[in-house]
Amino acid sequence: METMLATVMPQPGAPWEVREIPMPRPGPGQVLVKVHASGICVNDVLASRGALPFATASPAVPGHEPVGEVVEAGAGVTARTVGDRVGVPWVQGGCGRCAYCRRNLPVSGQLALNCAAPVTTGFAAQGGLAEYVVALAAGTVLLPDGLPYEQAAPMMCAGYTAWSALRAAEPRPLERVAVLGIGAIGHLALQFARTCGFETVAVTGSSDKRDAATRLGADLVVADGAELRDAGGADVVLATTPSYEAASDSLRGLRTDGRLVVSGFARGAAFDLAPARPFFTQRHRVIGSTHGPVAHLTEALDLAAAGRCAAVTEVFTADAVAKAAERVGAGEVRFRAVVTY
Amino acid sequence: METMLATVMPQPGAPWEVREIPMPRPGPGQVLVKVHASGICVNDVLASRGALPFATASPAVPGHEPVGEVVEAGAGVTARTVGDRVGVPWVQGGCGRCAYCRRNLPVSGQLALNCAAPVTTGFAAQGGLAEYVVALAAGTVLLPDGLPYEQAAPMMCAGYTAWSALRAAEPRPLERVAVLGIGAIGHLALQFARTCGFETVAVTGSSDKRDAATRLGADLVVADGAELRDAGGADVVLATTPSYEAASDSLRGLRTDGRLVVSGFARGAAFDLAPARPFFTQRHRVIGSTHGPVAHLTEALDLAAAGRCAAVTEVFTADAVAKAAERVGAGEVRFRAVVTY
Amino acid sequence: METMLATVMPQPGAPWEVREIPMPRPGPGQVLVKVHASGICVNDVLASRGALPFATASPAVPGHEPVGEVVEAGAGVTARTVGDRVGVPWVQGGCGRCAYCRRNLPVSGQLALNCAAPVTTGFAAQGGLAEYVVALAAGTVLLPDGLPYEQAAPMMCAGYTAWSALRAAEPRPLERVAVLGIGAIGHLALQFARTCGFETVAVTGSSDKRDAATRLGADLVVADGAELRDAGGADVVLATTPSYEAASDSLRGLRTDGRLVVSGFARGAAFDLAPARPFFTQRHRVIGSTHGPVAHLTEALDLAAAGRCAAVTEVFTADAVAKAAERVGAGEVRFRAVVTY
Amino acid sequence: METMLATVMPQPGAPWEVREIPMPRPGPGQVLVKVHASGICVNDVLASRGALPFATASPAVPGHEPVGEVVEAGAGVTARTVGDRVGVPWVQGGCGRCAYCRRNLPVSGQLALNCAAPVTTGFAAQGGLAEYVVALAAGTVLLPDGLPYEQAAPMMCAGYTAWSALRAAEPRPLERVAVLGIGAIGHLALQFARTCGFETVAVTGSSDKRDAATRLGADLVVADGAELRDAGGADVVLATTPSYEAASDSLRGLRTDGRLVVSGFARGAAFDLAPARPFFTQRHRVIGSTHGPVAHLTEALDLAAAGRCAAVTEVFTADAVAKAAERVGAGEVRFRAVVTY
Repeated sequence: METMLATVMPQPGAPWEVREIPMPRPGPGQVLVKVHASGICVNDVLASRGALPFATASPAVPGHEPVGEVVEAGAGVTARTVGDRVGVPWVQGGCGRCAYCRRNLPVSGQLALNCAAPVTTGFAAQGGLAEYVVALAAGTVLLPDGLPYEQAAPMMCAGYTAWSALRAAEPRPLERVAVLGIGAIGHLALQFARTCGFETVAVTGSSDKRDAATRLGADLVVADGAELRDAGGADVVLATTPSYEAASDSLRGLRTDGRLVVSGFARGAAFDLAPARPFFTQRHRVIGSTHGPVAHLTEALDLAAAGRCAAVTEVFTADAVAKAAERVGAGEVRFRAVVTY
Repeated sequence: METMLATVMPQPGAPWEVREIPMPRPGPGQVLVKVHASGICVNDVLASRGALPFATASPAVPGHEPVGEVVEAGAGVTARTVGDRVGVPWVQGGCGRCAYCRRNLPVSGQLALNCAAPVTTGFAAQGGLAEYVVALAAGTVLLPDGLPYEQAAPMMCAGYTAWSALRAAEPRPLERVAVLGIGAIGHLALQFARTCGFETVAVTGSSDKRDAATRLGADLVVADGAELRDAGGADVVLATTPSYEAASDSLRGLRTDGRLVVSGFARGAAFDLAPARPFFTQRHRVIGSTHGPVAHLTEALDLAAAGRCAAVTEVFTADAVAKAAERVGAGEVRFRAVVTY
Repeated sequence: METMLATVMPQPGAPWEVREIPMPRPGPGQVLVKVHASGICVNDVLASRGALPFATASPAVPGHEPVGEVVEAGAGVTARTVGDRVGVPWVQGGCGRCAYCRRNLPVSGQLALNCAAPVTTGFAAQGGLAEYVVALAAGTVLLPDGLPYEQAAPMMCAGYTAWSALRAAEPRPLERVAVLGIGAIGHLALQFARTCGFETVAVTGSSDKRDAATRLGADLVVADGAELRDAGGADVVLATTPSYEAASDSLRGLRTDGRLVVSGFARGAAFDLAPARPFFTQRHRVIGSTHGPVAHLTEALDLAAAGRCAAVTEVFTADAVAKAAERVGAGEVRFRAVVTY
Repeated sequence: METMLATVMPQPGAPWEVREIPMPRPGPGQVLVKVHASGICVNDVLASRGALPFATASPAVPGHEPVGEVVEAGAGVTARTVGDRVGVPWVQGGCGRCAYCRRNLPVSGQLALNCAAPVTTGFAAQGGLAEYVVALAAGTVLLPDGLPYEQAAPMMCAGYTAWSALRAAEPRPLERVAVLGIGAIGHLALQFARTCGFETVAVTGSSDKRDAATRLGADLVVADGAELRDAGGADVVLATTPSYEAASDSLRGLRTDGRLVVSGFARGAAFDLAPARPFFTQRHRVIGSTHGPVAHLTEALDLAAAGRCAAVTEVFTADAVAKAAERVGAGEVRFRAVVTY
């Protein structure tokens, strides 16, 4: 039996291991991808610790940012061919039969939470921190020419999330966009907002991130919502941190008619909807956002290919994946960990 | 000196009194209105108790739902004439000079909270619980023909708020609209949603309001967010209660892509943004809403004139205003107190 | 070799024939559907006459409204299973590789005109006027329970088009919706607008359709744009006729901020953008619309299943398909021709 | 009697004259403005030639771009005070009583065409090509500090129109904006689009304007719709010329889901809605646009004050106004004629 090297999560709470596991084969409608780079998202680490639902694939291979080359196409696959450079996002597709899928909504991050049996990379299906990954052909995206794999990988989830958040805010010309949290998602959100012509503010309490934010293109850096307000406020706040406390605090600096976009998992239930002024009086909107329609991912990849944004990465070799995960879990990575194969 | 009878709030915390006070005179750009009916909003009562900022006009006459007849027009007034049937909303206009006013946004409820010197009926200017009220001509609205004054009054704030909330939700064809809280605002919101063709759900924990909700046109009545969810959920929840707890709970029943509109003052800071599922995963939006652009008020009045909604009122005579306020403060009125003059 | 009876278009300009042709077999990712009902769209007839691009499948089987039962599922199909009641829309999918497909936009009518190699039912792929049809599993939709096949078929293109047009107009509460042309699309558009709570106007110059329009739920019937204007105008006009002249004329009755949706092929190039008043002064919008995202089709089917609309059909047996096509081409069918198998 | 020098249009078809006419006085609610600069719009010239409705004020003073200083405030004016730097836009206000005004929509260019008795500068009211002009205080806007009068004047109509057109298109991040016609409106539209971060294309058939377009910030200059298409197309086309032929031609270069905004008067009725492909297939929208809500004017002025756009002007002295009008009428001005006082 053919085998490959893959990262395996043995069980909730246990450290990641590199193991030799059976080589996966593409069935009808699937492709086999030789992975060249694969990012690590903090949710992979949280899931492996039991803080999020654990993977159901067996063995459990994490990683939902793989990019690479199609080396084999299963029966009936016409949209992908051997040699294609592709990426596999978190959500490859739905069951097609449940109440949610019957609505025929486009594939998006919502599907993963609402479909009865979603095909999720690194969760229901084996993920991309491996030499090879099998994916639904229809769930892959073609990478733009010229985009290096190490730059493509961080777009598959972090960039996708950041760009969808900006889209969800529906920013209008002249608006000012603040990014709360300068991490994997935030450092890309900042660049996206700036390259689209918006005045940008970084909101970060970490003094060591203030310089980084400026280098990444922030027109202004502030520490919190009160400072944001004193600096004139923002029309849009993209909250990319997992802290409801910080997200709520940023409402202090949200202008009239402003939108606070909450992206990704936030911990702790209590959110202060009115930290400063009665919520209803400013026509504020608090918007939940995750991976939007797949076209958003395409746009993020195109921006990266055009050099309009660049992920700042720590690149690890395949055998250092456990260390990489550890650093991701500790919040030490600046700003995205990418494993190359 | 000519005088008139007016409701006066002597000081924060003191009961309302009926007093003889100087008859107001319209200056340039103003009209004098003979009041025929005037609603009482709970915010009038809260302000008189000190729970909201107290009126600055002296003597302090409450009431921001007056409707009546123009009996005198000040110099330069061309848009209103003696005999016009008009209503005076909460916000008549702004200072025209502050940072907010310089943006030249349309008059709306936001102006009251952002303008440096807004002309607010019953707060900065004498209100409408009196025989006469003076108002900026440009701040009044013409009433549609045939709409009785007692029906027009509740539209000036309660109806305006309810309709703006529905508008803020940007409901689409086929959506299901839930109304949380069947009170002054909610009992109109329910009728508005229904007459616009939406399937409606009333969410109320008060058993004595369940029958009323059904009579007002609710297709379904549920007790809370969990029941709403079990009944299939709603795309829109219009939260018309002052309880953040109830508003948050309703997120349990909000469908994917749904919108929770928070109208009016809510008490207590803690809002649970994720009572059931992670907020970001459902693309939910929480929207603050108050009086929208004045065109919303016009639409609410037109709906009332067309018989497409009808405020349920308790009508009081002018000398019973203190008792009316007491009942409003205690939440006993079903559903809007109107004082006739 | 197994065979089936199918409608065949021998060549452009020739009448349709019923022939015995090879039974199609489902490949990987495909399903074989036993057709129970199949509508005839005027575009099928126009294409067979050479007025639209001719089918490239061979033999050329027309029909893009087939509904029926899955009798066989190809390799790798998980979202459909034998026994499923499904419909096959005009556009089943794209090539996945061209410039348009690389944008990863949802499948819609636009794809058919922009993709380099779209899979279009009755054009690039064999259509549904046959005993059996093969389709991409991912391109089919599950039919709601209880919806008769003869009612489901007209939703697959006529209803889909009508509903997408209403969606494209983004109608708001209280708006008035006019439907120009009471034919296959228009008679459904009228019912959709009405069941969604809008006041409706039918605009038709055919005296024999005025009564039908009233029976279908039009609150008002007018002959043209001038009559529409005199009757108060409309916020939305859904132009469902192939006449630019009539579509343009309807601008006379379009209210300020109104939207004219042009659905489907219109003949003749000249469109008078300002038949009455300068175009720019009324903030009018003229919107092109075809099949929207597939979720629109689902919604149309759900409305039909709920009895909120009902296609008016002329039902033909399979051997009468040439006669049916003739009547469709002559505009004699009231309002949708459906062939049963 | 006090007098002032003013431009007067003696009668339709006659050349403009400078005359001494009675000094206007501000009534209640009005201000008297010492004009410092006043632009000339081609519509002033068209009106004086009889191609548009002639002014009804007597004597007829043209000019709807005056900016200057408040030197006297009428009774009841609180929002403006002596010394304020203000501009007077085309529409100062409505009658407040007609069917349109009863809807209480914000003041905008639409009001001028729909109100029964609009107060329009240079038409119903004396315009700004004079030493002084009287205006409704509520119809004036405060100018941002530091913006020179000669730069402010062109914003009052040309800039306002250009900015509203961009707003009407609702451009989204990453979109490409083409400007058709590089004249008074177009040369500002180009700068607006660019400073808001959009990739820009100038579409002009005038070879002498190609260089100007590049200097003004066009990323690309093309001659027509076909060249636009070959260069990748645009998501938005702002048609600022009075030619329907050119506007229609630009549809050839409009991308899927694109919007063509038609601003200002276009001559000739015939518009080809489908010069290349069937209109309905691309989800195109053709949008009529004029002065939007007054907040748009404020934003345009703020952009000018921030140096993010600069009108290119030909400045004339007050006595050369007839010559200026002649050059405007002949289309010779590059790009806005401004008269200083």
